[in-house]
Amino acid sequence: MSRFRLTVDDHIMIAHSLNDPFFGPAQNLHGATLSIQASFFRDSLNEFGVVMDIGAASELLASTLEPLRYQNLDELEEFRDRFTTTEVIIEHIAQRLAAGLPAGHGLSAVEVEAEEHPRARASVRVQL
Amino acid sequence: MSRFRLTVDDHIMIAHSLNDPFFGPAQNLHGATLSIQASFFRDSLNEFGVVMDIGAASELLASTLEPLRYQNLDELEEFRDRFTTTEVIIEHIAQRLAAGLPAGHGLSAVEVEAEEHPRARASVRVQL
Amino acid sequence: MSRFRLTVDDHIMIAHSLNDPFFGPAQNLHGATLSIQASFFRDSLNEFGVVMDIGAASELLASTLEPLRYQNLDELEEFRDRFTTTEVIIEHIAQRLAAGLPAGHGLSAVEVEAEEHPRARASVRVQL
Amino acid sequence: MSRFRLTVDDHIMIAHSLNDPFFGPAQNLHGATLSIQASFFRDSLNEFGVVMDIGAASELLASTLEPLRYQNLDELEEFRDRFTTTEVIIEHIAQRLAAGLPAGHGLSAVEVEAEEHPRARASVRVQL
Amino acid sequence: MSRFRLTVDDHIMIAHSLNDPFFGPAQNLHGATLSIQASFFRDSLNEFGVVMDIGAASELLASTLEPLRYQNLDELEEFRDRFTTTEVIIEHIAQRLAAGLPAGHGLSAVEVEAEEHPRARASVRVQL
Amino acid sequence: MSRFRLTVDDHIMIAHSLNDPFFGPAQNLHGATLSIQASFFRDSLNEFGVVMDIGAASELLASTLEPLRYQNLDELEEFRDRFTTTEVIIEHIAQRLAAGLPAGHGLSAVEVEAEEHPRARASVRVQL
Repeated sequence: MSRFRLTVDDHIMIAHSLNDPFFGPAQNLHGATLSIQASFFRDSLNEFGVVMDIGAASELLASTLEPLRYQNLDELEEFRDRFTTTEVIIEHIAQRLAAGLPAGHGLSAVEVEAEEHPRARASVRVQL
Repeated sequence: MSRFRLTVDDHIMIAHSLNDPFFGPAQNLHGATLSIQASFFRDSLNEFGVVMDIGAASELLASTLEPLRYQNLDELEEFRDRFTTTEVIIEHIAQRLAAGLPAGHGLSAVEVEAEEHPRARASVRVQL
Repeated sequence: MSRFRLTVDDHIMIAHSLNDPFFGPAQNLHGATLSIQASFFRDSLNEFGVVMDIGAASELLASTLEPLRYQNLDELEEFRDRFTTTEVIIEHIAQRLAAGLPAGHGLSAVEVEAEEHPRARASVRVQL
Repeated sequence: MSRFRLTVDDHIMIAHSLNDPFFGPAQNLHGATLSIQASFFRDSLNEFGVVMDIGAASELLASTLEPLRYQNLDELEEFRDRFTTTEVIIEHIAQRLAAGLPAGHGLSAVEVEAEEHPRARASVRVQL
Repeated sequence: MSRFRLTVDDHIMIAHSLNDPFFGPAQNLHGATLSIQASFFRDSLNEFGVVMDIGAASELLASTLEPLRYQNLDELEEFRDRFTTTEVIIEHIAQRLAAGLPAGHGLSAVEVEAEEHPRARASVRVQL
Repeated sequence: MSRFRLTVDDHIMIAHSLNDPFFGPAQNLHGATLSIQASFFRDSLNEFGVVMDIGAASELLASTLEPLRYQNLDELEEFRDRFTTTEVIIEHIAQRLAAGLPAGHGLSAVEVEAEEHPRARASVRVQL
């Protein structure tokens, strides 16, 4: 089982619409601030006594979020024909984070949580 | 392992007493605001790209909490002969949430967390 | 000086663009969750020992926010030819709240605060 | 104008009922966790570079709250014939804090804020 | 009266000691994370509908905090012969922020709040 | 799987330096407030309907943190020749908490989380 976790924060502000009657008023073009928490899991600490360098973790998260900042997700190729729900967005971010990890990272999992408003949030965990 | 989690919030304001010397001053009739977070776990997303409809999740939580709002738990039949600790209350809520899920929900677990005051909280997870 | 304050919370999720080079990347169509806190000030309590009925305060805030929920502010008549910054939006909300107060409210001021993302927020106070 | 503010936190868990139809379901005997923030204002710092000793501030708040902890406010003499709304409770606390300040305190005001649940809070300021 | 407020956040992690028996165990060399909120007040909005450019506000705060980051305050010339209490540190920051504002800023006040730990915080307001 | 969790909070304010170029500016002697959350896991509730006595949990956490409060970790014997990263500190705390549990505790795991600043936190889980 993963024993250690390191979490860093960032956020994105995006527009989108969810085009199915299932989503009610969210079918309109609207937007959201997604407050993002990215967590990295490791079974034991590295030689410096950390899960990973916290600066590197923050920079990896920032560069992963960069293509989404101030965007209208309805116009992005990577979400074509998908509902850009919070769950879909965080899965996308988690997969990009996992792909961006350096060789020999020693991590067991990546988790991404997004708070979309003060009363709801979602998370996804990707095993590595 | 559960991969996705959706969490929605609500709260209840209840009175109760904990009638055993084990509980010290909480033996008095007093009360609490329980800030509730209900989480729903699912291994993969449904056809709409969500764990479950967030509106349905919020309504299920609200209707589950309704019989407890503004109540003195010492007088409720469902807690007769039980200590109404935070742990007991959240287990009750989690079991009712699980029982209220629609057929074919596809969820793997439900978790309920309650913050009883700014420095203490408890949670319980029920596998489905 | 106002002595008592009552604050209630709500939120809106909107899309907008800020069309001037002053706003940098926020010139793009993007969006935000605005976590809203509305405060009502009163020099002394009413006959029921409150600033105002908390349910009435929450409903007034909710109905004031209703026309903005899930909207693209670029398309709303009331913001035509204005930059829909957080400050402009909260001033609009505060003025509508003030206009919606019942006769004989006895309040001295209304304040609206919005958190637009985890690291920035703005407020405006309107004297009554 | 007060320039400096020092704030310390504590909380109480109480039962009460609000016996007038004005209060709707809160007419029932129920309860609340009141998360309390007590603020002390001073125009300039004392010889030690502080508004007041932070330990003394915390102890004053704790001893002021002590008679209310784990109580049913319906049974307390000091609230007889009053509605124990959040506003009434915090005014009571603020007045007791003010009365408990040491001679020569040099403060200009005391403010007490209580969060009664995650979506509502109230405050009162008492000038000294 | 100031009507609008814009607030941005940052933080510093410093070491220091408070060398007087008044401070009890804080006489030891220890440290703190100071979570900083800087607020800027303005009576009316500028031509872009804001209190000030939020990016400029964040950069001004960051550059003001830069000389304090990862420092032992006991060794800094600007705090020689002073107790580096939270109040003294935030007054220093507020004065530097005020001094760093661009000409023609139109602001009426600057306020700096620091949370030194989860249960205590302080603020100072400097009129401009 | 552990089903119930009880969490209590406390904090420490420490100085330290991280003496390797890996840590960049944190090589300087600086400090941190570590906001600590200690969680206790149990598969079923005890005879009183709790994971463990919440007062006992808070006291165990407080006494475990006592030797670290207001300390310069560079001078403590137990961290000699180690980098006192957040991860190393919380593992130390978790092991001490586990060692301090009473006989027959019935717990399955202990978890310690520390927030070192508003945008980063770490946790460690120790199976019992």
